Amino acid sequence: MKFLAAKDRGEITIFGVPFDGTTCFRPGARFAPAGIRFFSENLETYSPALNRDLDDIDFCDAGDLEINALPEDMVETVYSFMENVKIPVMLGGEHSVTFPVVKALKERYGELTVIHFDAHTDLRDIYSGTAYSHACVMRRVLELGCKIVHVGVRSGTLEEFTLIRDNPLLHLVDIKKLPEILENEKNIYFSIDIDYFDPAFAPGTGTPEPCGGTPVEFFSIIYNLPSANIVGFDIVEVSPPYDPSGITQMLAAKVVRELILKFWGG
Amino acid sequence: MKFLAAKDRGEITIFGVPFDGTTCFRPGARFAPAGIRFFSENLETYSPALNRDLDDIDFCDAGDLEINALPEDMVETVYSFMENVKIPVMLGGEHSVTFPVVKALKERYGELTVIHFDAHTDLRDIYSGTAYSHACVMRRVLELGCKIVHVGVRSGTLEEFTLIRDNPLLHLVDIKKLPEILENEKNIYFSIDIDYFDPAFAPGTGTPEPCGGTPVEFFSIIYNLPSANIVGFDIVEVSPPYDPSGITQMLAAKVVRELILKFWGG
Amino acid sequence: MKFLAAKDRGEITIFGVPFDGTTCFRPGARFAPAGIRFFSENLETYSPALNRDLDDIDFCDAGDLEINALPEDMVETVYSFMENVKIPVMLGGEHSVTFPVVKALKERYGELTVIHFDAHTDLRDIYSGTAYSHACVMRRVLELGCKIVHVGVRSGTLEEFTLIRDNPLLHLVDIKKLPEILENEKNIYFSIDIDYFDPAFAPGTGTPEPCGGTPVEFFSIIYNLPSANIVGFDIVEVSPPYDPSGITQMLAAKVVRELILKFWGG
Amino acid sequence: MKFLAAKDRGEITIFGVPFDGTTCFRPGARFAPAGIRFFSENLETYSPALNRDLDDIDFCDAGDLEINALPEDMVETVYSFMENVKIPVMLGGEHSVTFPVVKALKERYGELTVIHFDAHTDLRDIYSGTAYSHACVMRRVLELGCKIVHVGVRSGTLEEFTLIRDNPLLHLVDIKKLPEILENEKNIYFSIDIDYFDPAFAPGTGTPEPCGGTPVEFFSIIYNLPSANIVGFDIVEVSPPYDPSGITQMLAAKVVRELILKFWGG
Amino acid sequence: MKFLAAKDRGEITIFGVPFDGTTCFRPGARFAPAGIRFFSENLETYSPALNRDLDDIDFCDAGDLEINALPEDMVETVYSFMENVKIPVMLGGEHSVTFPVVKALKERYGELTVIHFDAHTDLRDIYSGTAYSHACVMRRVLELGCKIVHVGVRSGTLEEFTLIRDNPLLHLVDIKKLPEILENEKNIYFSIDIDYFDPAFAPGTGTPEPCGGTPVEFFSIIYNLPSANIVGFDIVEVSPPYDPSGITQMLAAKVVRELILKFWGG
Amino acid sequence: MKFLAAKDRGEITIFGVPFDGTTCFRPGARFAPAGIRFFSENLETYSPALNRDLDDIDFCDAGDLEINALPEDMVETVYSFMENVKIPVMLGGEHSVTFPVVKALKERYGELTVIHFDAHTDLRDIYSGTAYSHACVMRRVLELGCKIVHVGVRSGTLEEFTLIRDNPLLHLVDIKKLPEILENEKNIYFSIDIDYFDPAFAPGTGTPEPCGGTPVEFFSIIYNLPSANIVGFDIVEVSPPYDPSGITQMLAAKVVRELILKFWGG
Repeated sequence: MKFLAAKDRGEITIFGVPFDGTTCFRPGARFAPAGIRFFSENLETYSPALNRDLDDIDFCDAGDLEINALPEDMVETVYSFMENVKIPVMLGGEHSVTFPVVKALKERYGELTVIHFDAHTDLRDIYSGTAYSHACVMRRVLELGCKIVHVGVRSGTLEEFTLIRDNPLLHLVDIKKLPEILENEKNIYFSIDIDYFDPAFAPGTGTPEPCGGTPVEFFSIIYNLPSANIVGFDIVEVSPPYDPSGITQMLAAKVVRELILKFWGG
Repeated sequence: MKFLAAKDRGEITIFGVPFDGTTCFRPGARFAPAGIRFFSENLETYSPALNRDLDDIDFCDAGDLEINALPEDMVETVYSFMENVKIPVMLGGEHSVTFPVVKALKERYGELTVIHFDAHTDLRDIYSGTAYSHACVMRRVLELGCKIVHVGVRSGTLEEFTLIRDNPLLHLVDIKKLPEILENEKNIYFSIDIDYFDPAFAPGTGTPEPCGGTPVEFFSIIYNLPSANIVGFDIVEVSPPYDPSGITQMLAAKVVRELILKFWGG
Repeated sequence: MKFLAAKDRGEITIFGVPFDGTTCFRPGARFAPAGIRFFSENLETYSPALNRDLDDIDFCDAGDLEINALPEDMVETVYSFMENVKIPVMLGGEHSVTFPVVKALKERYGELTVIHFDAHTDLRDIYSGTAYSHACVMRRVLELGCKIVHVGVRSGTLEEFTLIRDNPLLHLVDIKKLPEILENEKNIYFSIDIDYFDPAFAPGTGTPEPCGGTPVEFFSIIYNLPSANIVGFDIVEVSPPYDPSGITQMLAAKVVRELILKFWGG
Repeated sequence: MKFLAAKDRGEITIFGVPFDGTTCFRPGARFAPAGIRFFSENLETYSPALNRDLDDIDFCDAGDLEINALPEDMVETVYSFMENVKIPVMLGGEHSVTFPVVKALKERYGELTVIHFDAHTDLRDIYSGTAYSHACVMRRVLELGCKIVHVGVRSGTLEEFTLIRDNPLLHLVDIKKLPEILENEKNIYFSIDIDYFDPAFAPGTGTPEPCGGTPVEFFSIIYNLPSANIVGFDIVEVSPPYDPSGITQMLAAKVVRELILKFWGG
Repeated sequence: MKFLAAKDRGEITIFGVPFDGTTCFRPGARFAPAGIRFFSENLETYSPALNRDLDDIDFCDAGDLEINALPEDMVETVYSFMENVKIPVMLGGEHSVTFPVVKALKERYGELTVIHFDAHTDLRDIYSGTAYSHACVMRRVLELGCKIVHVGVRSGTLEEFTLIRDNPLLHLVDIKKLPEILENEKNIYFSIDIDYFDPAFAPGTGTPEPCGGTPVEFFSIIYNLPSANIVGFDIVEVSPPYDPSGITQMLAAKVVRELILKFWGG
Repeated sequence: MKFLAAKDRGEITIFGVPFDGTTCFRPGARFAPAGIRFFSENLETYSPALNRDLDDIDFCDAGDLEINALPEDMVETVYSFMENVKIPVMLGGEHSVTFPVVKALKERYGELTVIHFDAHTDLRDIYSGTAYSHACVMRRVLELGCKIVHVGVRSGTLEEFTLIRDNPLLHLVDIKKLPEILENEKNIYFSIDIDYFDPAFAPGTGTPEPCGGTPVEFFSIIYNLPSANIVGFDIVEVSPPYDPSGITQMLAAKVVRELILKFWGG
């Protein structure tokens, strides 16, 4: 389908943030926006599962933001860009790119619930010298006062898991509970770290963690969610250098298509 | 086991068609016959699941057909070759190689049902300038008057899915229904596009599509099929350049062994 | 976590045996100890599933043994090294490295049950000219008088499967039976060939065999085992050259962490 | 520098032809236009050797032509596109893409000399079933009545080398003779098959042939050529799937920059 | 030889700085210290060209510094570490790691000449938001008051080349002039960006630039240098993810061995 | 050309020995015979440099010997095979495969000179526990009483280089001296370790060593050798897993073609 070639209109703005400056293990997520777009060329615009077609959706692809090497600057650039975005569909980059988007949305909507698909808690306070590390992104989001629903989290420190247990804004749930949970949330943002999925399905990521979710289960849950109140989403941590067959990038492209069609295609 | 080294006799003829001339996204299927044979060397001849051994089967490996760059010529070459083949076991190449085999079998048997394992409908009329594109192969097969049972199909255009819904020769079924369906078919050909399987299990293919079947389920269904009336099969779209660990080629080799043993090993 | 950086004390000794001299198909397991350690750096020390932390465990990493090219010499080197090891946690290398460890433990404990996770029987008598081939390792273990419980085995010759059926020391069981079986065993050693897992989850191995187990099931069974009487374990046949995304090495690192925490972290 | 981002004006038109449909050995040249552009992003616009800057040149990048799977159609598409191109700078694709460009230029200028950098003669009449095979491209060019100066050719059949010796339009010369030869030519087109270069410098190509030229020598000759009468050039047969380090694509990008600056930057 | 296993004594300290946080194109230099050490295992300690042996040299390998994601912090960490280092042999990391070492040496010796082997000028003032970018490292070194002798530089902006021409501290020389130039320098530091070499010889680097030097020429010049007054050296910008055959890492290991033996082995 | 498809007659026997059992660093040479044959398919049979054609030569390709894991057994297998070979053209495998061929030829001819193209001396007595290690092969050849002419050797221990200096049967010469040297030798065997070439030209080898020879120089010397008295040759240590672009395998295929045409094509 190629996102880039899509009709340039509508309230949905796809944009890429090719940043991986705080990645502690294996960098490469900077190449994800280009990679996901490349694979989206070979994805049909039509979704048989949803019986909807991207050709019927108004959205534009704004391309990639110009990002420099410093995390603070990336946060500022993305935050500024959000001024002109109504419904963000962001292609990371590492997970740190989520913070400025959520910050902008929280200020806009007052109340915001973040559905956090990930293998990792991402709740460290400081990591690798910076508060904007991808290992800290949900800690920053928490400080904004967002409610966070962790789905698929299976790695972290004892401190992080203790924080989840103790902080009333943090919830660790089974993906099967999502439909029920979303019923009652007002403004909902999805942040999908590709390592939520088992490494078999998404090997191309910086820090693969065994025992993740399957795409079949993920989409079957997504298809059964209520569509109201979704204010945007991102997909992050896809790393093309570690995706020799492209299956991770193809999965990410399909996640983007299905979520757009599900949430705004009705 | 190495197919090539097998006993050169019998009615079953393994042959390769190293053609990928219409592949629209990522070529490489031309290297599949060599790749599958290489991996078959490390596969035992004995199947514990079936308690049968390839050493007890009469078959020959005819090697690869000499193919040139033009789809029409490939169709002619394979069709001619079929004159001397009783039971074909074809190693593609891209999916377009299936058409001349099915054409020959349809003419031979009069009635033919094609069990089409695939992620894609492959029902386009013309694609990339040719009616023999791998995206059109099942449309051509349909025009021959074959009944087609699609298994695992999860990608296509709205037009293609509409065609499936409206054309009485086309059936989209869950793999679990196969045993029941095959009971009533007379002459049955299996065409297995490796992208039927989820990309996790078969990453080495030109156009991976998430949410496919698992080998465990596939074989458990196969083992429970009736063996009568099967007139041949192919496995196509394996792409070694995108299979760095070889797991796709190994899976293809095992599919070949198990299907031969299941259908003609009794 | 990086095993190498762990506290250098305790009865548990991690050590690597970078040997793949009898590998018949694709060598590379010699690079596994280094590869697994590299990926262990990016694994947390804390296990949320077990609520235990490697930082609370006494163990040391003795590094890699110096191994030469001959299987007999490797057997001798590992066997000698075992004199000073109380609880071995061995990182292979190919599967042949298991024999000298089991030999030493069998002599030490008198009675020994080997839980053999593998895709292959490994029960050949002689292979590729040597009795110490990785294809023969369980035959050698059997000759020591050990009871062997095969889990996940799905490839072998008719002779090997006949041996399993006929020899009272050999048992082929479903992984779900493990908790029950372990109840009654006295001294138990786990030998985990990474190809036990389906190639989707562990592509980086010399001889991938479709239709293996999943990590989710594996760990859920492990978590429910009785911890008593385990005398050591190994993980073998990881092959970094065929693991471009590192997911196999990461899985191996997690297996090591979870087994240590499960069996000796209580 | 990124060609795509360059000023969109001027008589020089960069365009890509992502076609590799007749490639007999290893396809992949279809990915070259995208690959060369990607690497051009990391190339400076300024050439220290020429003391000229691409920012001072008027040219546009027209992107890639839409090409289908059939060689005849590709020839037609490129030929038609040439109607609107004054000075072509074509990024192949395999070498067959050169024919329609040369055909259009020959018709436009009446007289045309093609400087053919290549490892191979490319003078076969028919190959792999088609007269438009990349192995036949210079035979087709010859039939147009062009003079061809082969540089670097070191592989071919006896028949092809005999043709070069006997046909007055064909010349096989040492690269050092180029400056002298160009003095007397009227309208000159450069067709640069990347396999002109030794595989050490340009490994990413379908059919590498040892004993090629070096980039240092190539550029030193180019810098000393007369700039008049050059009517366009192409660079073909770069194959990104076989260029894991990207050095071939980077070399191609530099060839494009230096030739533009040399021939039209003065 | 494996540097890590060398005798731990002497005034020469090998250390790694696994930092690539400002790399603008393709990250990966963070893996170079580990990669160079891995390949050094397969390099003999004896140099036939110099008839000297590393076993006769007193040096230690201090391992890698712990570095975080921020360029400023890296600079501080390396600078502090230099307090305890007499003769530094640093394994980068990207080129920005050179600045803190040169800063410490400049302060120590008062006068310092940097021999800068590189494809790029690295003289930008600010790049990608930071003054510590690898594209700015020689600008920072210049500001320290060091004389810089550029060798092999063939890429940069017009501004950078103008700076070289105009600033009396900057010299762009042919490698053949080095022996003569070094005669008169007092305290000399070598900073070797691996992309000094032609990409054919050193493909594994982030920003390969065609037309570089050959190892044969490099070593022949090095062997003929005066050995006095060398105060240390570094080798930077090796990028293992883009070095599939390892030849870049092996070249880097040999550079380290030969320079140590040449300068301090007499 | 594909060796395998060549006319099956004549005194020249091509055969492969897929053995790499003593390789100390990176195995993979076992895949070289298959790899070189694959690339030979894309090499013309005609040599423009020699104006000769393989189609005019009588030779056969005997395929690969069946080899097991033990070096002693490999030596025995190859030695026995030599009984039926008049002029051997052996495709290794690692360098240890040379010994049994030379042994057979020495016994046959009484006097034998081995021209040893290599980066390494290969003169160790015992290595990695075996006298048949690839690091010892020329020591074994020396013990047979052969004269050895080392060409390109640039790595080894002090002991090995001392042996070369002191032993009258050993000669280390510049390749330019070869024509002169061969004038006076009676029976000459060429053993070509691919790492003789610089890693830029032959990256696909287990132990690349910088500063090797170029193919252009190699062939220009070969073309000027006297052809008489050559009794066979081998090419060893090509390692396909480290040859992602195939340029090493292509170079090896060309070496085979040119040497056959040069020595026996007149």
